[in-house]
Amino acid sequence: MAQIRRLVVDVLKPHEPPVLAFTQQVGDAESIAGINATLLELDKEVQNVKLTIEGEAIDYDAIEALIEDAGGTIHSVDQVVCGEYIVENAPTPQD
Amino acid sequence: MAQIRRLVVDVLKPHEPPVLAFTQQVGDAESIAGINATLLELDKEVQNVKLTIEGEAIDYDAIEALIEDAGGTIHSVDQVVCGEYIVENAPTPQD
Amino acid sequence: MAQIRRLVVDVLKPHEPPVLAFTQQVGDAESIAGINATLLELDKEVQNVKLTIEGEAIDYDAIEALIEDAGGTIHSVDQVVCGEYIVENAPTPQD
Amino acid sequence: MAQIRRLVVDVLKPHEPPVLAFTQQVGDAESIAGINATLLELDKEVQNVKLTIEGEAIDYDAIEALIEDAGGTIHSVDQVVCGEYIVENAPTPQD
Amino acid sequence: MAQIRRLVVDVLKPHEPPVLAFTQQVGDAESIAGINATLLELDKEVQNVKLTIEGEAIDYDAIEALIEDAGGTIHSVDQVVCGEYIVENAPTPQD
Amino acid sequence: MAQIRRLVVDVLKPHEPPVLAFTQQVGDAESIAGINATLLELDKEVQNVKLTIEGEAIDYDAIEALIEDAGGTIHSVDQVVCGEYIVENAPTPQD
Amino acid sequence: MAQIRRLVVDVLKPHEPPVLAFTQQVGDAESIAGINATLLELDKEVQNVKLTIEGEAIDYDAIEALIEDAGGTIHSVDQVVCGEYIVENAPTPQD
Repeated sequence: MAQIRRLVVDVLKPHEPPVLAFTQQVGDAESIAGINATLLELDKEVQNVKLTIEGEAIDYDAIEALIEDAGGTIHSVDQVVCGEYIVENAPTPQD
Repeated sequence: MAQIRRLVVDVLKPHEPPVLAFTQQVGDAESIAGINATLLELDKEVQNVKLTIEGEAIDYDAIEALIEDAGGTIHSVDQVVCGEYIVENAPTPQD
Repeated sequence: MAQIRRLVVDVLKPHEPPVLAFTQQVGDAESIAGINATLLELDKEVQNVKLTIEGEAIDYDAIEALIEDAGGTIHSVDQVVCGEYIVENAPTPQD
Repeated sequence: MAQIRRLVVDVLKPHEPPVLAFTQQVGDAESIAGINATLLELDKEVQNVKLTIEGEAIDYDAIEALIEDAGGTIHSVDQVVCGEYIVENAPTPQD
Repeated sequence: MAQIRRLVVDVLKPHEPPVLAFTQQVGDAESIAGINATLLELDKEVQNVKLTIEGEAIDYDAIEALIEDAGGTIHSVDQVVCGEYIVENAPTPQD
Repeated sequence: MAQIRRLVVDVLKPHEPPVLAFTQQVGDAESIAGINATLLELDKEVQNVKLTIEGEAIDYDAIEALIEDAGGTIHSVDQVVCGEYIVENAPTPQD
Repeated sequence: MAQIRRLVVDVLKPHEPPVLAFTQQVGDAESIAGINATLLELDKEVQNVKLTIEGEAIDYDAIEALIEDAGGTIHSVDQVVCGEYIVENAPTPQD
């Protein structure tokens, strides 16, 4: 199976734990080399956070479990990169 | 025949298998060095995903078969790059 | 005569052969190091494809012949670069 | 626990101490390699400053304490990066 | 105290001395490695100039004194960077 | 006299010779290292082409003669760069 | 006195001498390493040209004299960079 190099997921989470602790908890997944959590929106009840995760062989199930343990839900998987190196999304006129 | 170095295709797929499993299945094609799957749109029935695929000699038929085996359809081929290296689309005033 | 290093042409073609086969056929020209075919528009009858071609000494006549053999027509030549290296179009306030 | 490499926080502060002294006070945190303070807005009572902080293992609690000692409040945590290197937020069509 | 690496200030000044002489006078501060003065606006009475100043350990008080000696006033401090290297303002969706 | 390193000219030309032959003819000037011809507009009678020419010591008179021999007219000289290296147009708020 | 590394000036000039000769005349200043002249606007009487000048120790008075000898007038000094290296104008939210 092709290894996952990058994963971009859109996550909904309650205010607790805060983004910092949430990111550290997800970032503890063994298969992750680095994680970027960027706040998209917040309202009274939930925070919408975009996670960009990179690694040699990312374990999606472990990450999903950590996100859910921390109270979050994956709303959508917005980008998946597999293979020997990270291929970027090539810009096209259809974008 | 000139070897294919990059292929950008616009794919329509049902919600199952999800983008992650779908990308890994297509990424298993032997001729692929890397694959980027970026979610463009999703509605109740289908997901619209843009695949950017790179390799030394990409086997289009094998990729199309893997996409169809995974329940997807190639809606359009948006970019093809052949040759000794990856030539980028040169910006022109007509763009 | 100054050698052609890059050629950008706007091509109209019928749906058959598809963009992939079309690009490979044109990419077989001996004088080409690499070719990028980007889909601009498609309607029922024709596809509008932008070709960015690079090489050390591109043979325009051979490329035009291959395009026409594959059923396409060069609608316009949008950029030509000649010389010892690829000079980019310098941005100016008139753009 | 995954180490924090970058932290972006939105801070509200009174006019005193001014941005310069404020940044130097926060920048004195031992865990910080560098800090960028960019003024977003200012009105009669408060200044809104965006802090981008980088380091090998940023100590959030120490930084929050220094911000509060200097009279500021963290209004939101806008980005957190953990891991072996700084992963940038990958652009996606959902942005 | 964390050393200042970059300072961006918005300055109001009369027409005399002109921007050139003004920049050279401020640029003579010992703690400055380089200074960029960019004209933002000018009307009959005043010129609005943005100064980007870089150095290893910028002495703000000395710079403020030089600006005032040259007839200028610091209207706002728009960016301060401290630490071992220059950290750039990380782009976020809140920008 | 300072040597010309880059020259950007806006040229009007009839449809014949086409852009390709036109560029090769101008590109044959001995003083040119490379030339980029980008199509700006075309109507029934004329083509508007932007030429970006680079070299160590560009001979403007020779280039103007070649353009005119090929039926073209220099409508405007939009950029001239002289000196030891190519200085780019620095962006300013007045742009 | 801090040495001038870059100077951006907005110049008004009559149509004669043309931009090319004008740039070469100004570019002959001993203190200049390179000069970029970009046409901003032209009407019947005057041309508006932006000069970006780089060097180790630019002599403003000599350049102003050369501009005036060539019939031009400095309308405004839009950027001045002094110091050990060229500091770029740092982008800020106030831009």
